Amino acid sequence: MNPPGGTTRFGSAEDCQEAFYRAMREGNSEQMRRAWLVSPGTTCIHPGAIPLIGYDAVIKSWTAILDGGNGIRVDYEPRSRFAVDRLVIHVGLEVIRVPNDSMVLVSVTNVYELTGEGWKMRLHHGAPVQARAQPARPVH
Amino acid sequence: MNPPGGTTRFGSAEDCQEAFYRAMREGNSEQMRRAWLVSPGTTCIHPGAIPLIGYDAVIKSWTAILDGGNGIRVDYEPRSRFAVDRLVIHVGLEVIRVPNDSMVLVSVTNVYELTGEGWKMRLHHGAPVQARAQPARPVH
Repeated sequence: MNPPGGTTRFGSAEDCQEAFYRAMREGNSEQMRRAWLVSPGTTCIHPGAIPLIGYDAVIKSWTAILDGGNGIRVDYEPRSRFAVDRLVIHVGLEVIRVPNDSMVLVSVTNVYELTGEGWKMRLHHGAPVQARAQPARPVH
Repeated sequence: MNPPGGTTRFGSAEDCQEAFYRAMREGNSEQMRRAWLVSPGTTCIHPGAIPLIGYDAVIKSWTAILDGGNGIRVDYEPRSRFAVDRLVIHVGLEVIRVPNDSMVLVSVTNVYELTGEGWKMRLHHGAPVQARAQPARPVH
């Protein structure tokens, strides 16, 4: 149990990621806030969007997404993981069930940093997977 | 000038990135190959696609994209950069001109690692920016 307004110390990148997806599922913007590194360089790219830079902009976006909703039905499927010094990078797929019960796939890169406050999310990049919806010659 | 088949030692993440985008512009898959880290964990997410994991899969995809083409008219606009120990992460926008001369925006995360062979690209994640094409309630 965390004190109201307190911080949460995650002992691993995996713990931080679990908290991130739990916050999405539960629509809990307060828990979401605690997963992220408080830094002007903190970055979030929502599916289909341009990059949001800075903790304040990132948290504002998640608060708008999560508050008033019933959470997002998301599962994470890992594809790769690598650790270099104080950074851990997870690459995987989010499987999201949307209201009409169809599924949306999102390719994700999640970057975690070991800080004085434990592991924190430094970057989240979610990208829509476009099944066969690409032009004949991909842009790259 | 690099010897045929030789490796290229990049002195900074910026130099490696410049080589990556030059290879795209010139449609030069041999130069592209030299920008990437030879590792089973090397990762590339092309716009709209699921993650490709491993140097061989990544290079095979770029060879298919670049060989026989005339290069990709791409410009990179930086949005943020952070360095932690032996990793540098760039976030920005690719502005790509496609054959009908319209522009495509791609949100990108590029991860570079300092190795015994100099700086190499470890991860590239490109995601299509969907201007006003999202559902009323974004998936997240």
